[in-house]
Amino acid sequence: MRDVYQEQMAALNQALGDMVSEVGAAMAQATQALLQADLELAEKVISDHDSLTEKSAEAEDQAFQLLALQAPVAGDLRSIVSGFQLVSEIDRMGALALHVAKVARRRHPAKVLPEEVAGYFEEMGRLAVELAHDARRVLQDQDYHDALTLMDDDDAMDDLHRHLFTVMMDREWEHGVAAAVDVTLLGRYYERFADHAVLIGRRVVFQATGKTPEELQEVS
Amino acid sequence: MRDVYQEQMAALNQALGDMVSEVGAAMAQATQALLQADLELAEKVISDHDSLTEKSAEAEDQAFQLLALQAPVAGDLRSIVSGFQLVSEIDRMGALALHVAKVARRRHPAKVLPEEVAGYFEEMGRLAVELAHDARRVLQDQDYHDALTLMDDDDAMDDLHRHLFTVMMDREWEHGVAAAVDVTLLGRYYERFADHAVLIGRRVVFQATGKTPEELQEVS
Repeated sequence: MRDVYQEQMAALNQALGDMVSEVGAAMAQATQALLQADLELAEKVISDHDSLTEKSAEAEDQAFQLLALQAPVAGDLRSIVSGFQLVSEIDRMGALALHVAKVARRRHPAKVLPEEVAGYFEEMGRLAVELAHDARRVLQDQDYHDALTLMDDDDAMDDLHRHLFTVMMDREWEHGVAAAVDVTLLGRYYERFADHAVLIGRRVVFQATGKTPEELQEVS
Repeated sequence: MRDVYQEQMAALNQALGDMVSEVGAAMAQATQALLQADLELAEKVISDHDSLTEKSAEAEDQAFQLLALQAPVAGDLRSIVSGFQLVSEIDRMGALALHVAKVARRRHPAKVLPEEVAGYFEEMGRLAVELAHDARRVLQDQDYHDALTLMDDDDAMDDLHRHLFTVMMDREWEHGVAAAVDVTLLGRYYERFADHAVLIGRRVVFQATGKTPEELQEVS
């Protein structure tokens, strides 16, 4: 029974990791669509989103089967419940990539971003994709040392996010309020995406050790 | 065993309902702090937030006890898993009320909101508190008819949110980019808060009927 549990749990983590890959790819494409005003790519991200919704439902089913069939013990229960919570995190990341693509579509054929902030979003996009990549690895390898590292990795995102506000507020912003509103919301989408990736790290630490990252650091 | 399950499940839903009351009250106070530049009230929301975090942990423990001790059957499992997901929704609502309070604190003693949008936020605050109130009732009564009604109730919030952008973009906005950035983020916080309240409705429908709201409407 224990072997069956471990096999199915590994399959669930594999599925979750694949979902994170998918939302990472979606964010890469959405960023490209945003930077290049590429309508076709924006549409692709938007239509691909349904497949994520299906995969979420499948992953939840896998987690229910683990709960229902294997009569798991306490530590296993925590891992399975983390599975449900991970599905929510990944769903949310997918929704954020979708939001970025929709902004790109809404403003097409115009570019959303004034030239002076485009570089920030290129970098935020790169970081978002990298965090998703790391989250996938952490999920599939269940390596909590890696997960702990992942948790510091959104500092760079937070820095960029802060600088973005400085650009809009402190310098001579000549692009009007409409562009500022778009940039504000987009910045928030990337920052939230990174935050969810980091939460994946937290949950994996908890799955693997039964402790929060803070509790682990107290011990070490 | 079944009686014990039902008693504990009712206690969990009661606890979740209390948490929603708490985040509703936090949003009411945060809105007041925002509108009146009331630093004391903003600080209160910020310091009260720890109590929500504790209650979340307690609710998760209750849900784990239900999972571990009662060997629940399939339908019950869905309800318990919904319990975990509800904790996440409510946490998020609390975090959004916290964000509002922090914006009020950051700009103190200045008021964050230009006069012409203050009325929007007064109304968005009122709606947010009302949605939290409805979500509490739905949770504690487990009335899925009420839950279905709740799901349409964020339309008014979405309308206000859209109008807010119109005010910033279409009229002569004289308050500069910094105010626009604040208003954009705040608008998003209220809209998201409402969205989470509605998701609580969805989850209660699912808890009570085993069906999504859409599936229910197909049947009727």
